[in-house]
Amino acid sequence: MSNNIEEFNDYRQKMNEKILGDNNKVIKRIFNLDTNAFKEGSLDVKTKELLGLVASAVLRCDDCVKYHLEKCHKEGLTKDQIIEALSIATLIGGTIVIPHLRRAYEYLDELIIND
Amino acid sequence: MSNNIEEFNDYRQKMNEKILGDNNKVIKRIFNLDTNAFKEGSLDVKTKELLGLVASAVLRCDDCVKYHLEKCHKEGLTKDQIIEALSIATLIGGTIVIPHLRRAYEYLDELIIND
Amino acid sequence: MSNNIEEFNDYRQKMNEKILGDNNKVIKRIFNLDTNAFKEGSLDVKTKELLGLVASAVLRCDDCVKYHLEKCHKEGLTKDQIIEALSIATLIGGTIVIPHLRRAYEYLDELIIND
Amino acid sequence: MSNNIEEFNDYRQKMNEKILGDNNKVIKRIFNLDTNAFKEGSLDVKTKELLGLVASAVLRCDDCVKYHLEKCHKEGLTKDQIIEALSIATLIGGTIVIPHLRRAYEYLDELIIND
Amino acid sequence: MSNNIEEFNDYRQKMNEKILGDNNKVIKRIFNLDTNAFKEGSLDVKTKELLGLVASAVLRCDDCVKYHLEKCHKEGLTKDQIIEALSIATLIGGTIVIPHLRRAYEYLDELIIND
Amino acid sequence: MSNNIEEFNDYRQKMNEKILGDNNKVIKRIFNLDTNAFKEGSLDVKTKELLGLVASAVLRCDDCVKYHLEKCHKEGLTKDQIIEALSIATLIGGTIVIPHLRRAYEYLDELIIND
Repeated sequence: MSNNIEEFNDYRQKMNEKILGDNNKVIKRIFNLDTNAFKEGSLDVKTKELLGLVASAVLRCDDCVKYHLEKCHKEGLTKDQIIEALSIATLIGGTIVIPHLRRAYEYLDELIIND
Repeated sequence: MSNNIEEFNDYRQKMNEKILGDNNKVIKRIFNLDTNAFKEGSLDVKTKELLGLVASAVLRCDDCVKYHLEKCHKEGLTKDQIIEALSIATLIGGTIVIPHLRRAYEYLDELIIND
Repeated sequence: MSNNIEEFNDYRQKMNEKILGDNNKVIKRIFNLDTNAFKEGSLDVKTKELLGLVASAVLRCDDCVKYHLEKCHKEGLTKDQIIEALSIATLIGGTIVIPHLRRAYEYLDELIIND
Repeated sequence: MSNNIEEFNDYRQKMNEKILGDNNKVIKRIFNLDTNAFKEGSLDVKTKELLGLVASAVLRCDDCVKYHLEKCHKEGLTKDQIIEALSIATLIGGTIVIPHLRRAYEYLDELIIND
Repeated sequence: MSNNIEEFNDYRQKMNEKILGDNNKVIKRIFNLDTNAFKEGSLDVKTKELLGLVASAVLRCDDCVKYHLEKCHKEGLTKDQIIEALSIATLIGGTIVIPHLRRAYEYLDELIIND
Repeated sequence: MSNNIEEFNDYRQKMNEKILGDNNKVIKRIFNLDTNAFKEGSLDVKTKELLGLVASAVLRCDDCVKYHLEKCHKEGLTKDQIIEALSIATLIGGTIVIPHLRRAYEYLDELIIND
């Protein structure tokens, strides 16, 4: 795996373990909910991951965008589909989203190359 | 149609006409893009409307939520599917989204009753 | 009770019942967490309600501000203490918070008068 | 003056008096700064009011937009200039700004009619 | 002191000096207000620092979170109290706050180790 | 040119080329609009760049701030004028803007030194 992807995931995992090891019930339940909310329900997993991606992009959270890009890619969404979702995010969220779009493109390309 | 839905759409249409009548090119093109971005492409219209709904909800814009609720409903998305999308928005955007969730529920119920 | 306070609480309760009656698990758990998070823990309830108030104010959510103003008032926090918390929110959140500060003042005064 | 403009200004003035009557020093100084920051300096008043308008629009605060629209109009900025500033706000802030643009147009037209 | 803490504070101090050396009155007064607002008043310093921390976390500003974490820690707030405040921020601000929570945990642990 | 300025512009250009090479029509048109919106119209280019700067600052996007700082500087706006615009952004956006103000100062100084 590329350094960027590995670094991101390693830090994410290391800190999540620290946070969950702390036994704050509210935080633990929010983490739990996060897992449950993206499981198949009335909407399929692909659609849900695209929703997570667009929400992350308009709220301009690079780490959240990376996380959902990885999930979208693993679920088999094509680059065109992912970019189309990001184009909607850029339109709704405005040009202020563009710097995040650049970093999303970079990360997505690394995900594709590392397949 | 219920008063709420009619009022919302009448005001929206009246003001859009005023805005577009003014011939500011940037604004006109943004309105145009808005129409194009939600047409079928690599993603279908239903998915795109859900993306618009979730982006609107996490950015906490009641009018945008109403607009996409109406489009989602017209596209045949079920109440369960729409609520599931809104549940993801509430999780990602936090409890600060809940007052908008209340108004979304109210508007969605009116849309369903007025079918 | 004054009309404003009553209206706000009636609508809030009516819509919460609708939302919770719908059995979306993610939303139900978020509502549940909301109750738990503000219970006494390492921090007392007063402090937590002030935290809720300031978070609501900087995120500029009038309904959330009203809700926490009511809780702060019921917990026995004085007007001076509540205003001091709101002054910090206005400094951190900027003058964009001021319109919400006006509505917060109005609501707080009604809460005090209706005691 | 039209009802909308009068109502907005009356409420604004009434609540500002209440807030400033309360003698919270931090809030008083923020109000004071607000007056000073928009006085002529290296930039002229017109430019500063346009800055205030665009900041208010991208942060999506209707009351702040109204306030700066009124100041812009009084300073002699033309409708075209004001709309051009708002078009930049809509581009940077995204289509999520559009509902606020509608209300800005309505208020600006009332300001012009009431001259 | 650990590199992270030192680097953060050195850069902060260096740039603050540059900014304040520039004699822009509005900025100087905002910096001044920032010092005054967190002094003991109707609320004690500990509570105010927790308010600053939660406001910073829901607005998702890593540097502001670090700054208030340091103040909270110096004021003698325990890790449990600080985490409880951050759990409320995560609930209100949503899972979009989680990446900032990770970095907050990392910084807080460094502050504790460096005591 | 200093490393910071060069790095920022190189990455920006490299990723923009990737993004535009992808032929997503919505994104391409948004990029196009971005160029058009800042051309002279009813408002001159200097004013528009200041509007872009202040919008970027209150929305707390470092990359957008850097981009508009560079444009402002090239258009011949003085440091005093640019700082005055940023002071208004800090007042409206609140102390949460201050970390971005620090980085803006650093970048602006590099731009001035590299003239």
